[in-house]
Amino acid sequence: MRGRFITIEGGEGGGKTTNIAHLCQRLHAAGIDYIETREPGGTPLSESIRDLLLDHKQQQMTEDTELLLMFAARSQHISQVIKPALEQGQWVICDRFTDASYAYQGGGRGIDVTRIAALESWVQGDFRPDLTLLLDLPVEMGLKRAGERSEPDRFEREKLDFFERVRACYLQMAEAHPQRYRIINAAEPLEAVKAQLDRVLDDYLAAV
Amino acid sequence: MRGRFITIEGGEGGGKTTNIAHLCQRLHAAGIDYIETREPGGTPLSESIRDLLLDHKQQQMTEDTELLLMFAARSQHISQVIKPALEQGQWVICDRFTDASYAYQGGGRGIDVTRIAALESWVQGDFRPDLTLLLDLPVEMGLKRAGERSEPDRFEREKLDFFERVRACYLQMAEAHPQRYRIINAAEPLEAVKAQLDRVLDDYLAAV
Repeated sequence: MRGRFITIEGGEGGGKTTNIAHLCQRLHAAGIDYIETREPGGTPLSESIRDLLLDHKQQQMTEDTELLLMFAARSQHISQVIKPALEQGQWVICDRFTDASYAYQGGGRGIDVTRIAALESWVQGDFRPDLTLLLDLPVEMGLKRAGERSEPDRFEREKLDFFERVRACYLQMAEAHPQRYRIINAAEPLEAVKAQLDRVLDDYLAAV
Repeated sequence: MRGRFITIEGGEGGGKTTNIAHLCQRLHAAGIDYIETREPGGTPLSESIRDLLLDHKQQQMTEDTELLLMFAARSQHISQVIKPALEQGQWVICDRFTDASYAYQGGGRGIDVTRIAALESWVQGDFRPDLTLLLDLPVEMGLKRAGERSEPDRFEREKLDFFERVRACYLQMAEAHPQRYRIINAAEPLEAVKAQLDRVLDDYLAAV
């Protein structure tokens, strides 16, 4: 049986790493074979592209170039990792996917949504995640949490209203795709967030 | 006055480097301010993308990823180098441009032309070269000449019929766009090729 493709989305400081680890633990306990991957990245070539995207020195990178590089990395990731795993029956847990392009490049930087959709269609055809978990929390809380970690990268240096637009875009997508999206309130204490995740996962596994 | 955008195209061993140098000499002698650039490349970021594209180790790169990377490099090149130069009145002499994507990724690797056209339109809108010089010669002659140089890169390792399809695609584009294209017979001895270039350039400069 084909595996399921689960993406985890959300802004800064939403606890993606911790919650992905919890999700994977649950899948393992349920006897589900899975792989864990991330975007941009997930293949050696895509990780090289990720390095270009996150490089502080590339301040002159245009919005169009950034989006094309994102989709180049994604194209390789889908062909080389995601689809082969799904076809072998493995589930794929992916830290960010195309919705992040809509949120960051579309909502955040203001690239026209139809231009993003054109590349999505060019690269993916009708390939989409089966389930998307949105770790949602207020922007200031998220940035405060993220700020406690390492030096901010190029994306993290952006201004507050950028992240407000990112969050709004994610919430719009969740509303537009209720069958695929589950909103997790990531503002709660970690144990409560894990409990939300557990409920979502229990429902999903029961329906598979 | 806006500058002119001249691209030089053709398969392996057509003498692009030598003939571009001759072309630039002629422009200099005519008092025309120009810049010389190349694809993939032409900006620090685009040159980094070029390194990824030509890397021997990236054998698993899919055709779609290759094309997206080409256009990512091109998008940056146009915004950061080509258009600003043209707007300042400089002429831009570019070693390969989008027609090379049609020839190599379309003709050579068999990517559907409509998929290339979709990316061309996404990245460039209606921006096209003003003049394209095609250095045309039989494939075997070109490969023999190219083989006398350094170790072959990933593209040069491809098979003979690949390059036959590349050549055929270039000739088709020249036929489809007679106003923009000039075919130079690069099989002739170098002095004769330069003489052809001089005639084309004299005509072009007289009409500008």
